[in-house]
Amino acid sequence: MSETAKRILAGLALGAFAVGALYFEVFNWVLPLVLILVFSLMGLYEFYHLTDRGLDGAPFRKLGFLFAILIILGFYAHFLTIKTRFGFEPDATYAMFMHWFYPGENLAILLIVFCFIVCSAAQLMTRPLDGAIYSILVTIGGIVYTTLTLGHGLLILAYPRGVFYLVFFVLLPILMDSGAYFVGRWFGRHNAGLKVSPRKTYEGYVGGIIFTIAVANAVVWGWKEWANPGVREITFGHLEVSLLAFGMAILSIFGDLAESAFKRDANIKDSASTIPGHGGMLDLADAIYFCLPVAFYYMLVREMLGFGF
Amino acid sequence: MSETAKRILAGLALGAFAVGALYFEVFNWVLPLVLILVFSLMGLYEFYHLTDRGLDGAPFRKLGFLFAILIILGFYAHFLTIKTRFGFEPDATYAMFMHWFYPGENLAILLIVFCFIVCSAAQLMTRPLDGAIYSILVTIGGIVYTTLTLGHGLLILAYPRGVFYLVFFVLLPILMDSGAYFVGRWFGRHNAGLKVSPRKTYEGYVGGIIFTIAVANAVVWGWKEWANPGVREITFGHLEVSLLAFGMAILSIFGDLAESAFKRDANIKDSASTIPGHGGMLDLADAIYFCLPVAFYYMLVREMLGFGF
Repeated sequence: MSETAKRILAGLALGAFAVGALYFEVFNWVLPLVLILVFSLMGLYEFYHLTDRGLDGAPFRKLGFLFAILIILGFYAHFLTIKTRFGFEPDATYAMFMHWFYPGENLAILLIVFCFIVCSAAQLMTRPLDGAIYSILVTIGGIVYTTLTLGHGLLILAYPRGVFYLVFFVLLPILMDSGAYFVGRWFGRHNAGLKVSPRKTYEGYVGGIIFTIAVANAVVWGWKEWANPGVREITFGHLEVSLLAFGMAILSIFGDLAESAFKRDANIKDSASTIPGHGGMLDLADAIYFCLPVAFYYMLVREMLGFGF
Repeated sequence: MSETAKRILAGLALGAFAVGALYFEVFNWVLPLVLILVFSLMGLYEFYHLTDRGLDGAPFRKLGFLFAILIILGFYAHFLTIKTRFGFEPDATYAMFMHWFYPGENLAILLIVFCFIVCSAAQLMTRPLDGAIYSILVTIGGIVYTTLTLGHGLLILAYPRGVFYLVFFVLLPILMDSGAYFVGRWFGRHNAGLKVSPRKTYEGYVGGIIFTIAVANAVVWGWKEWANPGVREITFGHLEVSLLAFGMAILSIFGDLAESAFKRDANIKDSASTIPGHGGMLDLADAIYFCLPVAFYYMLVREMLGFGF
């Protein structure tokens, strides 16, 4: 099977799996929790691999994973808290869980600070001093990059019609990525001259943006037309979708290039080879990491301005 | 004037200034906001100086300061939100401010993630690729170290009798630092053998811990005895204060050593010479950075267990 076919098949399989996990409400939405957790930790694992410089500094892997898990649990409690605003009634176990993981706010800030403190202590007690700053900062940086970002996916999901919005916002960077890839391959003539990613073409970028805007509009149109009543009342108009798709496409370019820059800085080609045809989780999700938090804030501001979720 | 006298005088002057700022309720507690902002930014400035490695990677200073200011404003909005739970009625301007800086939660998480994204974009557009990971991570790490930590001071302050609790928790690391310094100087015989801070003695550490516990108990006793009714009803007992002082003293040791480790990693002796006799803000506040977030969480858990604030 060709690389491209592998890439498409693996992408579709993963997509179907992910959408299924978001759609089925098993045991207080535990599937999205597991999904976000797995995607975060896989990305974190690869980021830690990327940034390991041996004696010059290396992440505190176990501590990083521990805090990433706690932070995702914090986001999950935040998710359940938002859900209760829209009619979800937690049972006693969950009330207890939420009490400790959401004492009036998302614990992520506090956990990031604690991670800094604990890593500093670990550095002092278990490692030589060289590379102290680097080691502590990559441990935290990996969590910010892969975990704080994806955690916002859970928050988007918590609002009414959240499944649509989350899938939509994950779809945009994927559309941009595949659009740019195929248009660049078929019609690419003019190299964009980017040192960080030398094979990118202007045609690819422009084609990817147009493709993203077109498919995003088609998806929204189809959703409003055919989705079940009760979930199809999304408040996106086509002008808004077009601008949004354009903005997210640009953001995706930066997400993609940033990950390439990290790999070049670390002299590594693929972040891993976990996903057939795609490389690693970081290669697959680089643009999604950047898009989800911005999307959440966009939706939040939109709601504050009275447009609804 | 001797270094020690300078150190004591500068410390007392700064302390009096800080307590004054916390005590006077001018214009919706704007003084504590300014205080925390100045202390954070001074620390951040020094951290960025410390971690500047030129062509091998350097923080994005302006972006770091911008996001630090936004994050402190987010904490301030969080502070005002907690205040409203205890009877504070914000006027229209402040309601507007809180609406945008506290849309149901502290914006710090989101801002940290945005800082990561914006720094990545800045790296791609304005700098060569070498040191990309380091540059982005020190920009964020400095904010976590100096700003997310001190921001929790505002949250402690927001609760009833917050001025007492905040001053108390800032006092503990200062007591430990000065106790260890003087006891070590006068009675120090056995070197603690720490590579990161070779002049520290066991006598200094033990003396500092005893001094911290003793003074903390005296302060609590005096406060309950002589403070104005209405603020003197703090719920600390002497056993709790002793354990707390012990824990915070240990944490202070780690905070102090961590900062020394950062300076050694960067081959710098004093973080700056802004404060006479103390060095820089990082030298002065290193232990406070570690103690405040832990103190806030301690108070939060204590409140959740029903002991009150």
